[in-house]
Amino acid sequence: MTEILADIGEFGLIDRIHELLQKEGVQTPGLTLGIGDDTASFLPHAGYEVLVTCDCMVEGRHYLPQHITPLDLGRRAMVLNISDIGAVGGKPLYALVSLGLRSDTPISDVEAMYRGFVAELNPFEASIIGGNLTKSEGRPFIDITLIGEVEYGKTVRRSTAKVGDAILVTGYPGQSAAGLQLLLQAQPNADLLSHPLVRAYNIPSHRAWEGRAIAQSGCVTAMIDTSDGFLGDLGHICKESAVGAELIQEKLPISEALRQGAQKLGQDPYDLVLKDSDDYELIITCSPDHVDQIYSAVVALSDVPVTEVGRITDMARQIKLILRDGTWSEISPAGWDHFTESGG
Amino acid sequence: MTEILADIGEFGLIDRIHELLQKEGVQTPGLTLGIGDDTASFLPHAGYEVLVTCDCMVEGRHYLPQHITPLDLGRRAMVLNISDIGAVGGKPLYALVSLGLRSDTPISDVEAMYRGFVAELNPFEASIIGGNLTKSEGRPFIDITLIGEVEYGKTVRRSTAKVGDAILVTGYPGQSAAGLQLLLQAQPNADLLSHPLVRAYNIPSHRAWEGRAIAQSGCVTAMIDTSDGFLGDLGHICKESAVGAELIQEKLPISEALRQGAQKLGQDPYDLVLKDSDDYELIITCSPDHVDQIYSAVVALSDVPVTEVGRITDMARQIKLILRDGTWSEISPAGWDHFTESGG
Repeated sequence: MTEILADIGEFGLIDRIHELLQKEGVQTPGLTLGIGDDTASFLPHAGYEVLVTCDCMVEGRHYLPQHITPLDLGRRAMVLNISDIGAVGGKPLYALVSLGLRSDTPISDVEAMYRGFVAELNPFEASIIGGNLTKSEGRPFIDITLIGEVEYGKTVRRSTAKVGDAILVTGYPGQSAAGLQLLLQAQPNADLLSHPLVRAYNIPSHRAWEGRAIAQSGCVTAMIDTSDGFLGDLGHICKESAVGAELIQEKLPISEALRQGAQKLGQDPYDLVLKDSDDYELIITCSPDHVDQIYSAVVALSDVPVTEVGRITDMARQIKLILRDGTWSEISPAGWDHFTESGG
Repeated sequence: MTEILADIGEFGLIDRIHELLQKEGVQTPGLTLGIGDDTASFLPHAGYEVLVTCDCMVEGRHYLPQHITPLDLGRRAMVLNISDIGAVGGKPLYALVSLGLRSDTPISDVEAMYRGFVAELNPFEASIIGGNLTKSEGRPFIDITLIGEVEYGKTVRRSTAKVGDAILVTGYPGQSAAGLQLLLQAQPNADLLSHPLVRAYNIPSHRAWEGRAIAQSGCVTAMIDTSDGFLGDLGHICKESAVGAELIQEKLPISEALRQGAQKLGQDPYDLVLKDSDDYELIITCSPDHVDQIYSAVVALSDVPVTEVGRITDMARQIKLILRDGTWSEISPAGWDHFTESGG
């Protein structure tokens, strides 16, 4: 019989997770008190700021349990948070994992989820140092707080883009949205898990290594990850920096997979690039003179493409899309909004 | 018409909360990046360890919306976390608040909840620096990560109790459990909100100031808060310190309110003291020679009683209750366990 949470209880599960982390996780230097006390504690590095971010995923809303394995779910939940730390130029160190779980959840599923967390944390020598387990017969949720560090004064913000800056983006935003739509439209027994767009949705890549390298280059003026969709997050930069933006449609990067997926879905691929999509790519702004240095910083450590797609303008909060024929249209920066009707 | 979340959306709500915090919250020194970026950041104090804890409350499971105001709910959720920081001798600094909310939640309720958070944080000059809002049409939840600090090497653990140590407890554990039972047994329109036991359940006090003073005294060997019930948490100390404990029944502190409440509920007041109860008192162990110094540390700053209730023994994990007639019985340290059948 499958062992479930109700069989071993909260404390039993904590012991089991503790064991798994000791075997498969890494020990982050600086940790002074780990799992098993009222709090965890660590000794911060001199000359560094501490970064903190927090992201929550609710079943049915942020993931579809029938379409994602517990391992990939764990990876995805951790990637969201790692992406946030990378987007300000930091390095992840410690995670706290808070889970709302049904009492009939198989223990092996919880363990697989932790393996997913660890798979994403280990490359950074980052580790899980605490958390919380809560019985929730409603929708399960995964809420992660991730702590990182960045050299003092080196945090890259979203509020510091300058008029005239180039706008760059990593990878191919929109692939995740296309993957989600393919899943939603698929026949019940279609096996899409290995489809590149579905993989982009289920286990998106973070760009934290790239974000850190970009920050270290000293050439970036503002940065953000695309968790609210390309337009949504460019909108955040515009709002916080009190600037506008001009995007050149034909420069927007579209992967071959996205082009084919858009065709299959009967959609304009540019819509997929611009609107809500959980890709966790980076939007970067920098002086036009520094674009090459940003390219070099990324090329030195990964083959993720970086594409220049437009300019920052002085038209506060206005985002224009320049079309192939030279005409333009104003586009709305409303990204993913969890509560309004238009929100996902 | 009552303004609800669906009217103003996630970003609208974030703006509203931001405004409230700027007006009613404090600014914690050291914060370098607050709400409104991918992460928050702060500059830790030299010579201090950073503490992190995380606690989650789910509606219907950890609180009863019909019996608690949003303001008190906010206070209670923050108290849980402040208690954990205090139990290791630390001082709270920064909170991240993650909420799962139904889209029909009144904005004024969310604002009242934040006023509750702030009411508990302000006395420490601690502040909310980030978080997450998630739509959840299931059960709403409040998940808080609280960050604190403690002088390097001064963290008080649960794993360091010594054989022969005195066992002390603050306040009156069990009042919260009695309050909850009164609520559950009450007539639908009974107004119990001002009943002292119900107040102990709805807005329990933390003992973080006391915990910090006890830690600073240098006399404590182990400490824990009673979030899993007195026996549950004494059990954690015994397990982690590889010791046992002897409790003297007649020394267990019982308030007049608890005595009356137990009578009304037809229960043994000692059962209420020992078993599951959300009181957030402190269990302290120290050398018998240091009991007076612990008393003095607490008396200097509050009128919370501290009671010596027993001794740490060498009978690993065994907890004995010495009765009035000199006989004893072994009692189980199983505290609140969220997943097993006996769990709450």
